[in-house]
Amino acid sequence: MTTNHQWLLAARPSGMITGDEFKWNEAPVPEPGPGQFVVRVVYVSLDPAMRGWMTDRRSYVPPVGIGEVMRAGGVGEVVASNHPGYAAGDLVTGTPGWQEYAVTDGSGMMPMRKLAPGTDLKTSMGVLGGTGLTAYFGVLDVGQPKPGETVVVSGAAGATGSVAGQIAKIQGCRVVGLAGSDEKCAWLTGELGFDAAINYKTANIARALHEACPKGIDVYFDNVGGEILNTVLAQINLRARLVICGGISGYNAVEPMPGPSNYMQLVVMRARMEGFLVSDYASRFGEAITAMSQWIAEGKLKSAETVVQGLENAPKAFRMLFEGGNTGKLLVQVGPEPR
Amino acid sequence: MTTNHQWLLAARPSGMITGDEFKWNEAPVPEPGPGQFVVRVVYVSLDPAMRGWMTDRRSYVPPVGIGEVMRAGGVGEVVASNHPGYAAGDLVTGTPGWQEYAVTDGSGMMPMRKLAPGTDLKTSMGVLGGTGLTAYFGVLDVGQPKPGETVVVSGAAGATGSVAGQIAKIQGCRVVGLAGSDEKCAWLTGELGFDAAINYKTANIARALHEACPKGIDVYFDNVGGEILNTVLAQINLRARLVICGGISGYNAVEPMPGPSNYMQLVVMRARMEGFLVSDYASRFGEAITAMSQWIAEGKLKSAETVVQGLENAPKAFRMLFEGGNTGKLLVQVGPEPR
Repeated sequence: MTTNHQWLLAARPSGMITGDEFKWNEAPVPEPGPGQFVVRVVYVSLDPAMRGWMTDRRSYVPPVGIGEVMRAGGVGEVVASNHPGYAAGDLVTGTPGWQEYAVTDGSGMMPMRKLAPGTDLKTSMGVLGGTGLTAYFGVLDVGQPKPGETVVVSGAAGATGSVAGQIAKIQGCRVVGLAGSDEKCAWLTGELGFDAAINYKTANIARALHEACPKGIDVYFDNVGGEILNTVLAQINLRARLVICGGISGYNAVEPMPGPSNYMQLVVMRARMEGFLVSDYASRFGEAITAMSQWIAEGKLKSAETVVQGLENAPKAFRMLFEGGNTGKLLVQVGPEPR
Repeated sequence: MTTNHQWLLAARPSGMITGDEFKWNEAPVPEPGPGQFVVRVVYVSLDPAMRGWMTDRRSYVPPVGIGEVMRAGGVGEVVASNHPGYAAGDLVTGTPGWQEYAVTDGSGMMPMRKLAPGTDLKTSMGVLGGTGLTAYFGVLDVGQPKPGETVVVSGAAGATGSVAGQIAKIQGCRVVGLAGSDEKCAWLTGELGFDAAINYKTANIARALHEACPKGIDVYFDNVGGEILNTVLAQINLRARLVICGGISGYNAVEPMPGPSNYMQLVVMRARMEGFLVSDYASRFGEAITAMSQWIAEGKLKSAETVVQGLENAPKAFRMLFEGGNTGKLLVQVGPEPR
């Protein structure tokens, strides 16, 4: 292999992603410079947050530059190294971007981290990857659910939401998920053990939440924002915690999305709404991976991935996130699994 | 005196208070029943929160019933008592309502609390009353400002905001207030020691905040909501705390006010927005009054009241709150100060 296929960011999007924001590029497979190594990418991650990285506005990371490889989490194997910490054959996860080969010194938005030989790469990108870690710290550190409390999760069939709900369930909570199809809802209650699930596209959300949360809502783990967040605010309990993880309903909006007009319920209920970023918890990733691996081994935490084949399909697959096309973690397989 | 003049709630308001929501009533001065006492009211308090008590929707207290005396904080002297804890001549503060004489067993939204003989009644309603206590716990417990941080206060010339800003100043913060006239702004910086003040009616708020808060905003004490809250969100620092005390800009709105569309900045900045109610801190009022009395004695905390004469003017005075008519605590003097 001498060609490195890449998707570059060609233009900043306006509204829904069309695919034209990206440019297919062929470059030589890179050689590692001093202190660098080259990763052959096996899977790249598609995450709603990536939509934000395409836009030039105040955020927690600078936007992807025009002409740069589209930033994305991913996993692969080291194929060449001039870095003392990495050797050919090592499995690594980090932020390689939408390309077949990434040259790196190990730094990045999520720095390159070695995985144990034999690691399940898909799980390492999902439950044990950035989205799973996001769920872990968002639920436990920000949401702080207590046994018997009611936890509502939006985007519940997505990569983060599906893990967030399962973790809340492990904490002994009543867990209610919102998702965009009856199939997803059936999966949440049938496979993942959610106590109830609401199809937000067909239900009267306020009424359905009242029925599914007869004791009110103590913790809300929000991936979507918009009208669902506002509806939840009207049903929170005293001292409720609203964990703001994402707001996918607004990510492709051209106009600013309306904010939650019911936010004054925070006063009525002495509640808080709090944002967080998983990267702040990097020093505790080991703790989370140990705990979640144990839950996986015990059958309490299930992994689910939707895998799209071929880097060339990444832009199309990216749209699936915003159109409800995936269940669990959405990955693009860029190259074969290492033998 | 044999007549007890009262303002009853006659109708639920829609939009801005007109005064027609209240009905002037004459009743006999009450006699205390067993376990009761009668308070001759000297001052009643006018607070933005009272607008919420007139509306029948989910809140932290039931609304005032139609035909009931309008609920309001106040201070007065006991004139007759069958209660072992209270004797004629005692000064008390609580929630007597808009009337000349209140009969009570001491319970109420704010239970009746005795004041030391010689207490300054106006200060007891302002800095050392509900609004001052609200500022104290909101700033210190919810906002938790650290020395050198920048604290922004909206409604800064009001009863709560003026105390909140002064307390933040005492904590060693840079304090910036928003108020609705140049006179109020001059008072904030000239009399109360605010570092800067912004006239939100004439300034470009975003630009003025940028200039007044060159290091960004760490704590926002919000009394107004609406567009100012949204503008502040775009300028918060990492781990900022937004203390939601009130949202006066929306209290008379017929349609739901827009929510803060920039709330996703809570994620970008890992910040939180939290509501609170002073009544939750009742067990710590003594601590707060001791601390604030000390600050008053040291000249670090100043009291300011706007006093309107005559209970008959209470509805008109109430509108002043929403029209920016008052500086500091707005009181109606119902009867003469005790000799």
